Amino acid sequence: MNAFNFYSPTFFAFGEGAEHQTGQLVRQFGGSRVLLVYGGGSAKRNGAYDAVTDSLREAGIPWEELNGVRPNPRSGLVYEGIDLCRRAGTDFLLAIGGGSAIDTAKAIAFGTPYGGDFWDIFAGKAKLEKCMPVGAVLTIAAAGSEGSNSCVITQEDGNMKWGSPKSDLIRPRFAVLNPRYTCSLPPFQTACGAADMMSHIMERYFTNTPDVGLTDRLCEALLKTVIDAAPRALANPDDISARSDLMWVSTLAHNNSVGVGREQDWASHQMEHELSALYDCAHGAGLAVVTPAWMEYVMNHDVARFARFAANVFGVEPDYAAPERTAKEGIRRLRVFYRELGLPATLEEVGGRVEDIPAIIERRKQKPNGFPFGGFVKINPDDMAAIYRLCAK
Amino acid sequence: MNAFNFYSPTFFAFGEGAEHQTGQLVRQFGGSRVLLVYGGGSAKRNGAYDAVTDSLREAGIPWEELNGVRPNPRSGLVYEGIDLCRRAGTDFLLAIGGGSAIDTAKAIAFGTPYGGDFWDIFAGKAKLEKCMPVGAVLTIAAAGSEGSNSCVITQEDGNMKWGSPKSDLIRPRFAVLNPRYTCSLPPFQTACGAADMMSHIMERYFTNTPDVGLTDRLCEALLKTVIDAAPRALANPDDISARSDLMWVSTLAHNNSVGVGREQDWASHQMEHELSALYDCAHGAGLAVVTPAWMEYVMNHDVARFARFAANVFGVEPDYAAPERTAKEGIRRLRVFYRELGLPATLEEVGGRVEDIPAIIERRKQKPNGFPFGGFVKINPDDMAAIYRLCAK
Repeated sequence: MNAFNFYSPTFFAFGEGAEHQTGQLVRQFGGSRVLLVYGGGSAKRNGAYDAVTDSLREAGIPWEELNGVRPNPRSGLVYEGIDLCRRAGTDFLLAIGGGSAIDTAKAIAFGTPYGGDFWDIFAGKAKLEKCMPVGAVLTIAAAGSEGSNSCVITQEDGNMKWGSPKSDLIRPRFAVLNPRYTCSLPPFQTACGAADMMSHIMERYFTNTPDVGLTDRLCEALLKTVIDAAPRALANPDDISARSDLMWVSTLAHNNSVGVGREQDWASHQMEHELSALYDCAHGAGLAVVTPAWMEYVMNHDVARFARFAANVFGVEPDYAAPERTAKEGIRRLRVFYRELGLPATLEEVGGRVEDIPAIIERRKQKPNGFPFGGFVKINPDDMAAIYRLCAK
Repeated sequence: MNAFNFYSPTFFAFGEGAEHQTGQLVRQFGGSRVLLVYGGGSAKRNGAYDAVTDSLREAGIPWEELNGVRPNPRSGLVYEGIDLCRRAGTDFLLAIGGGSAIDTAKAIAFGTPYGGDFWDIFAGKAKLEKCMPVGAVLTIAAAGSEGSNSCVITQEDGNMKWGSPKSDLIRPRFAVLNPRYTCSLPPFQTACGAADMMSHIMERYFTNTPDVGLTDRLCEALLKTVIDAAPRALANPDDISARSDLMWVSTLAHNNSVGVGREQDWASHQMEHELSALYDCAHGAGLAVVTPAWMEYVMNHDVARFARFAANVFGVEPDYAAPERTAKEGIRRLRVFYRELGLPATLEEVGGRVEDIPAIIERRKQKPNGFPFGGFVKINPDDMAAIYRLCAK
């Protein structure tokens, strides 16, 4: 286990009715004038918008609104939000939704106090030093942004999808988690959420750090929970037990409680971000395509770890004499599981084309620290192209 | 899964050398004048005292000292600390040691701002409303007080061992966790620590709340880690990997990250507190005696849960046709494991006597909310006596 710092000061209010605490939580964490950030239809249809605004009203907290957040959230709305905050004197960002709404709120929260163009902070030209407090009312179990120290925004001009610097300053002060709000999600979105949270765990699981049995077991516990809960949520969308499991896993998968003290990978996320930036596919769908291909490509780097994954996560009976057989079976079961959830398996199914691969690699090269990436195995341009080709049908 | 709030805002600095951050962390969390609370010899022998005072000196933070904390910490030292804080204008409590030092610091931290006798707060006569910030430099992996929302103090006058009310106000602001400091612990203390953290997990594990597969798996992950690491730490006291596992498990076992959303039990802790109050035995040793007896006594309340425990924690092959056989084998393996660690198995081995049982029950009756206790199975006086008798050799 490596040395680490862990600081997750988010207050989590979990369960049915938790949203009624929102106004009081905003006040408790220093908010007196809120910018409400959300998508549009679903927050109004599922009742979250009404419950939250009622709660703000009760607590006597005025708010402005920024709606129209969409999946793979764009820089344009962040600029708009920053402008709104400056004009209104906002001191608290409150997101209703999933990762896209929360990430937009986070970028506004550190973009507003920064004097220049907020994109400087994503591009590494300026430091993230100040951030307004952020709260989240979660309605999608997937991204884990409700407890995480980062956010991802797509630059409108050029379709570059970039992660912010990691900073404890941008962890939400509170998160309201009512699993009931996730019952009305379309099945495909539930499935994409499952793939997203599984990826957050697997990006941490595949590591070169020795002596990480404790966090290995915690990662496996979360992965097994998703494998148990996601099919139940799809079979019966109102299964509140399954929805609860998925919602709390989404948070634990990405607040780093299962990733402390270990080098992490994140190569699959990097490769997926290029796909969703270009094709605007769902992030979880892109991950379902990229991750098994990445696994096949890097498996021989540490067959024992992949064999452990197969045995402890998917219950594959280990073949101790031929661990690569066990390892391969684990990857196959992951593919089968994703397919059963209704997720895509090929580049083409997320709108991609093999012919675009060279251009994607070139775009990646333009990013600061574009290559190599990945903590478990270093991915260079040729590796990235090979993995994308493994994704093609 | 039940509704829950979870708030664990402690900053954890883990790893070798983490103690050098102490002064800066005190400052970051608002301290300008510290009361240093510790035991005596071991903090000076293992180097923690020197490292911490060097770090305070570097940060320009003055301190007073309160030493002489001993296991099963007493109210006398708390009164002394409160007096010292009031006279010195202390604004930050810093403990070096294990649960006894941290619990003493916590009681001083909420006793000082309270106008009256701090014991009023333990006795439920006054509310815990204000608390000075507390920091911890951990040198014993056991009690989990470094991340927990409670503390336990023994009233000198009458030998009553009582837990404080649970409050997020008393969670340490930071905890410095350097597993190296635990390498010099006597083997018996390492073993007692393992039993203490296992108990913190098992008190949460045995529940009547349905649909808790996620936290079940997290509990099992931590228990398996202790079962793997404790024998390694005893076989080779300098095994830093085993020491790291034990230290981080001790924290996770008791900051409630594996206990959210489920009714908890805590009957074994209640019964142990009576033993260590009377016989001044080590808390972990008392738990090693009481817990398996409690398990045998309550097993039939939920055989399936005990069978799961046996299979998932101790690797017992489940007998699906006779789950009580599996359940019993799990309890037997726990006994064997404790014995292998060198822990006591009987009341007599912790200095107890069967003849004292009626008096212990009478003492318990004097406590507010003395009976019944236990969330999984309600323990009444007759049950308590029966469980103690099961502990007798």
